[in-house]
Amino acid sequence: MTRDDCEALDRRDPLAAHRDAFALPDGVIYLDGNSLGALPRATLPRLRQVIEDEWGERLIRAWNDAGWIEAPRRVGAKIAKLIGAAPHEVVCADSTSINLFKVLAAALKLQSERPQVSMRERRLIVSERGNFPTDLYIAQGLAEWLGGRYELRLVEFNEVTAAIDESVAAVMLTHVNYRTGAKHSLTSVTYRAQQAGALAIWDLAHSVGAVPVDLNAAHVDFAVGCGYKYLNGGPGAPAFLYVADRHLKALAGERFVQPLAGWLGHRAPFDFAPDYEPARSIDRFCVGTPSILALAALECGVDTVLAAGIDALRAKSVQLTELFMRLVEERCAGFGLRLVTPRDAGYRGSQVSLAHANAWPIMQALIARGVIGDFRAPDILRFGFAPLYLRFVDVWDAVEALREVLTSGSWDQPHFHQRKAVT
Amino acid sequence: MTRDDCEALDRRDPLAAHRDAFALPDGVIYLDGNSLGALPRATLPRLRQVIEDEWGERLIRAWNDAGWIEAPRRVGAKIAKLIGAAPHEVVCADSTSINLFKVLAAALKLQSERPQVSMRERRLIVSERGNFPTDLYIAQGLAEWLGGRYELRLVEFNEVTAAIDESVAAVMLTHVNYRTGAKHSLTSVTYRAQQAGALAIWDLAHSVGAVPVDLNAAHVDFAVGCGYKYLNGGPGAPAFLYVADRHLKALAGERFVQPLAGWLGHRAPFDFAPDYEPARSIDRFCVGTPSILALAALECGVDTVLAAGIDALRAKSVQLTELFMRLVEERCAGFGLRLVTPRDAGYRGSQVSLAHANAWPIMQALIARGVIGDFRAPDILRFGFAPLYLRFVDVWDAVEALREVLTSGSWDQPHFHQRKAVT
Repeated sequence: MTRDDCEALDRRDPLAAHRDAFALPDGVIYLDGNSLGALPRATLPRLRQVIEDEWGERLIRAWNDAGWIEAPRRVGAKIAKLIGAAPHEVVCADSTSINLFKVLAAALKLQSERPQVSMRERRLIVSERGNFPTDLYIAQGLAEWLGGRYELRLVEFNEVTAAIDESVAAVMLTHVNYRTGAKHSLTSVTYRAQQAGALAIWDLAHSVGAVPVDLNAAHVDFAVGCGYKYLNGGPGAPAFLYVADRHLKALAGERFVQPLAGWLGHRAPFDFAPDYEPARSIDRFCVGTPSILALAALECGVDTVLAAGIDALRAKSVQLTELFMRLVEERCAGFGLRLVTPRDAGYRGSQVSLAHANAWPIMQALIARGVIGDFRAPDILRFGFAPLYLRFVDVWDAVEALREVLTSGSWDQPHFHQRKAVT
Repeated sequence: MTRDDCEALDRRDPLAAHRDAFALPDGVIYLDGNSLGALPRATLPRLRQVIEDEWGERLIRAWNDAGWIEAPRRVGAKIAKLIGAAPHEVVCADSTSINLFKVLAAALKLQSERPQVSMRERRLIVSERGNFPTDLYIAQGLAEWLGGRYELRLVEFNEVTAAIDESVAAVMLTHVNYRTGAKHSLTSVTYRAQQAGALAIWDLAHSVGAVPVDLNAAHVDFAVGCGYKYLNGGPGAPAFLYVADRHLKALAGERFVQPLAGWLGHRAPFDFAPDYEPARSIDRFCVGTPSILALAALECGVDTVLAAGIDALRAKSVQLTELFMRLVEERCAGFGLRLVTPRDAGYRGSQVSLAHANAWPIMQALIARGVIGDFRAPDILRFGFAPLYLRFVDVWDAVEALREVLTSGSWDQPHFHQRKAVT
């Protein structure tokens, strides 16, 4: 394998032209699209239109005239195509954390009203100890406020299915682990959960836009996901949530399926009635007025993914991560790197994580050379591969930079050891 | 009073030049800045900078380099200046509804841990029947999820203080009523609430940026507010919340003072620890990753208000609303309009509401003539006066348009009677 071989792969890449849809800085190989996706070229012109023509010219009328009021559903329906959901099962709203709060609350509500098949009380929420912390915090906060009725049980990645029994109310997992890149089987964990009478809640933050997800085929109960990673929606983009049609129907008669009863979840918000009567649709999971600027940027990002097609993206993602692993093995052997991400593509998302005792300064030295990945404590070098805008030659050059940093020992300079507030 | 007199008032207006800071459409008199503030000219250039230079060029590094991680606190500190709060008592986050959920939950938590001075259980949340519905819905949702421990008691505007006794846990009001424009006394209601051992929570949606508010002087416990009305932050701009310093301190040892325990409320979010340990500051009321585009637009809007100064804005607002009332009384008498807003400036915000049996078609006819106010069911014509960009001559012209619509009966055409989804 040579750099020329990588260039040849780029020439044959059916997604190569999609890179032009992004404004990428010169001199940078961006391997952190799993933290913050790159900027689509369509975003600024669209934001100019929303700001000048819609807000500036139409003012309040734009809520009707420019389709603002429909934006959470419209963008949700686009995301639905990427995750195997029906358009009416997905809506954009709030943050991933807040959406997880809503769907976890709804899942517990559903459980509390089901006839119990066992004498054991369902009081556990099972999750992975290495799950992204905000997911765990949200479950802790909700459980605490429900007065000790539920308990969060954390297990290791490979212990999840074994931990599911009839004491479990909900299994709440992130599909692809943010730190290791390891991917759970959405289908088999969901099946196992439901077999035991539990509900399955998935966080798609590190899969949506990079890994094909088929929520309906896997019979998933609830899901949430993030707009600013592989969906390229911009920093802090609105998140989304999914509720299976069967649950939307089952919950239709309930007044408070989750505690965040805001006016945009009301059956008729513009009636300004003093009593909450929820919409009988996914709208009931909306709360306050959403940022239209943020939704417009998210829509531009989602469009970049839809234009490429999720299956083609996954195929290239597997090739990119495979190439990276192979080149690291071939060219960076003997420097103490350890592969953390599963070697089998079927068990990973679109990132590769390498452990190293000096991960922090090594990553700083890489960033100084224009190769942007990130560090996750205590010892992880994390490289995300966004197939929409990464080339095979970028993978070559990134590994070459890593090899040079390790070979030269250039990472071991005082300024590379300094910690910043955020990475 | 003539149109010339209004022009003379504009020539003498010390805030006249601030109108140039806004991009206003031709042929429109915009009296709905209390629903959606107008577009500051600074917003698009600033968004271009955030999108192209920060997101596009710096990518993930902008969280450190461009101060993104500080934005919720930075913009919160600016808003603090407008509401009589210390910088560390205010943060921008989420929507008004979600922020109200957090502070109401925190207030109930505080109450539940106080030694009780009376034998009566504090189980009431007192609010106004005509409060903006989302505030009532949020209280209903939270009360329901707290298992019937609390009950929302709704009373009329003038009955609030009489309804406060030792059974009340929290008084939750909107400072200026969205429908009538009537303003509660922040100081005396807060005093009365605290005298009875209740906590005072204020929604500043219709006052921040138009009415001087001094939360610290009034010894207010908690407050929330909206970014997209008089703060000109753009459609669905992030909201803010205020927690009195004494409560931040009292809550410092508590783990879950409100249920939405997200990672940006953690003491050290980037440690990625599995257990929630809240920040001991206002940050604990942050949840998920905020939209940086939306925060940047909000900051531009807040800057327009700070540049003018809240006292000067209030002085002009009183003049504008006074002029409008006087001209309506002089020039639109005999058409069945009834003034809903208090005639005494001390008891109103920055809007004037008029009741009329045909309010809907009259408002549509006004909008067709370029005078944009809005309708609130069942019979309210609502006119908001944003002193940053409205002229006295606009008031004259708006009343003249209203007079012509009423005199000609032009409102009584079928197309003006058609209802739209959103107003």
